[in-house]
Amino acid sequence: MSEARPDAPELRKDPVSGRWVIIAKGRAKRPHDFEQAPAFKPGQFCPFCEGSEDACPDEIIAYRPQGAPRNGPGWRVRVVPNKFPALEIEGDLQKRGEGIYDLMRGVGAHEVIIESPQHVLSTADLSAAQIEEVLWIYRDRLVDLKKDSRLVYGMIFKNVGAAAGASLEHTHSQLIVTPIVPINVWEEMTGALEFYNYRGRCVFCDMIQQELTFEKRIVLDTPGFVAFCPFASRFPYETWILPKPHASHFENIQKHGVEELSGVLRQTIGKIETALDRPAYHYILHNSPFDTPELYHYHWHIEVIPRLTKPAGFEWGSGFYINPVGPEEAAAFLRDVEVLAQGRQSIPVRESG
Amino acid sequence: MSEARPDAPELRKDPVSGRWVIIAKGRAKRPHDFEQAPAFKPGQFCPFCEGSEDACPDEIIAYRPQGAPRNGPGWRVRVVPNKFPALEIEGDLQKRGEGIYDLMRGVGAHEVIIESPQHVLSTADLSAAQIEEVLWIYRDRLVDLKKDSRLVYGMIFKNVGAAAGASLEHTHSQLIVTPIVPINVWEEMTGALEFYNYRGRCVFCDMIQQELTFEKRIVLDTPGFVAFCPFASRFPYETWILPKPHASHFENIQKHGVEELSGVLRQTIGKIETALDRPAYHYILHNSPFDTPELYHYHWHIEVIPRLTKPAGFEWGSGFYINPVGPEEAAAFLRDVEVLAQGRQSIPVRESG
Repeated sequence: MSEARPDAPELRKDPVSGRWVIIAKGRAKRPHDFEQAPAFKPGQFCPFCEGSEDACPDEIIAYRPQGAPRNGPGWRVRVVPNKFPALEIEGDLQKRGEGIYDLMRGVGAHEVIIESPQHVLSTADLSAAQIEEVLWIYRDRLVDLKKDSRLVYGMIFKNVGAAAGASLEHTHSQLIVTPIVPINVWEEMTGALEFYNYRGRCVFCDMIQQELTFEKRIVLDTPGFVAFCPFASRFPYETWILPKPHASHFENIQKHGVEELSGVLRQTIGKIETALDRPAYHYILHNSPFDTPELYHYHWHIEVIPRLTKPAGFEWGSGFYINPVGPEEAAAFLRDVEVLAQGRQSIPVRESG
Repeated sequence: MSEARPDAPELRKDPVSGRWVIIAKGRAKRPHDFEQAPAFKPGQFCPFCEGSEDACPDEIIAYRPQGAPRNGPGWRVRVVPNKFPALEIEGDLQKRGEGIYDLMRGVGAHEVIIESPQHVLSTADLSAAQIEEVLWIYRDRLVDLKKDSRLVYGMIFKNVGAAAGASLEHTHSQLIVTPIVPINVWEEMTGALEFYNYRGRCVFCDMIQQELTFEKRIVLDTPGFVAFCPFASRFPYETWILPKPHASHFENIQKHGVEELSGVLRQTIGKIETALDRPAYHYILHNSPFDTPELYHYHWHIEVIPRLTKPAGFEWGSGFYINPVGPEEAAAFLRDVEVLAQGRQSIPVRESG
């Protein structure tokens, strides 16, 4: 067993809710260090731009012409470790107790996917071919990390805008891989399994069917994918993207699926950005845990969440969300928005929200 | 059955997670109406100050000298309906389905507790006697609303500072009463019941015992109450206040308990405000549902959550929180902070965070 540094990240379990928390003291702050990060300024040095490869930790993978050197320019999409990781890849889990409490070392991966060598600010400003490569590299990382038996879940997500917690504006996503199935994923899987056990159908397939029939919450409808504002949207303009045929594992997506999804993702984000004047937002890929076979009851999907409202004490305490915009209104608005073709001005994300 | 207005609030259930959402279109906003509310400015009209009673809806209850008129000055603590309620008290639930989805009318209560007739900004600037009256009025409202058989849970919470979602700075709390037990409460109760079934003890009593033995996460320790930073704190400087003797229902608190809690709440918030330079924060009273008898497995408590970090995509998607400050460090810091006596300058809450 390797000796853990005193500031090494820890995973601690709340004995009441069963929720795990990452205590990442490596990122520690003193009481007065919590001032909001200043907004990224035009002209400021960007460590994600081509030519600044030295400013990032040693790259994990990149798509670049064969033979071109690692950590140098010429790449199209690039994955590097997060410079301030919440979890660390080295070492064993050291699961243990402390009285009634459970904890383990914060073993895992925290990676950054740089989606373009140019200083592009939005997914909607990438070409469909570029987004395809982003999707392929998501998959490559999941397939690779699945081999590590200490790790059970990989969450791919993107934060855009300071109000969504992004510290750099250059278009990028993140991947956090954990040795525990996150509680929200667990609850989603459990709820979907209960539905399956009761009705014998995938709840997401049922939702797709019903939304396509109702039409009123549909944002986009393509042969293989659908985007809609869910019936119980927690947030205004919340939009989910799902593959129409049942599929539990994103990493089993086929080539034509990647091609189609890249267009759907670009359109959906373009609509949200145009409709809401480039709000801060997250998107999150909800996927099956690593150690599961193909599942009949779970259906991978992407949740896009504009950050327009600020969840407050009631939401934190209750888990009840108050959403001031009906998903029917939101979908009608997004459906009608025309996304401009590529070459839009890359204007920065609004800071408010 | 009364006919619901088309913009009446609805409760909708997510068929996957089982989470309920309040769709409150009465608060509806158009796409461009989400600019951050401007910060409250000194000198601005405050509807919560004594003399501005007309600016609030008809009062529900107030503590004032006997015989003094309703909705007039002379009160010490006052409860009014929220002017922009998330739920409405009139009407029946009209539980129904829409295909695979479940919904009901947004019946419930949304009240504001104005904690002082003066324009005071912080709980820590109230006298112990004033805080006692705030606690008594919390109890009075719970006891009254419990009689309504449509309603099952009352959540009392306080948002301080714009970053915590507060739109007015005058010290106030809120009460939202729902016809559904909120999912977070449900999970907390379920987790506590599992612990009780397995070990035969209340998990919160065990935590209190262990924290008092370890000492390292204790913030305050009085004969009847303890405040500590929980082992699996989700947020930096998160602090919980619990009564030491087992008690599942806040509304059964005794007079000496109110007296002691008022001092503990004032000290805890004073320490957090002094240590962190008046951060935005929430506090939330976690209490048993209305329709439960005294419970052996659940223990009411108050969670105080400074808003220093901004949960981002990973937290939203996973429910895993990343906390950059160990609770041991946080507690050590809070323990050592001296809270100034009353009469501190009432400086505004910081806007950042």
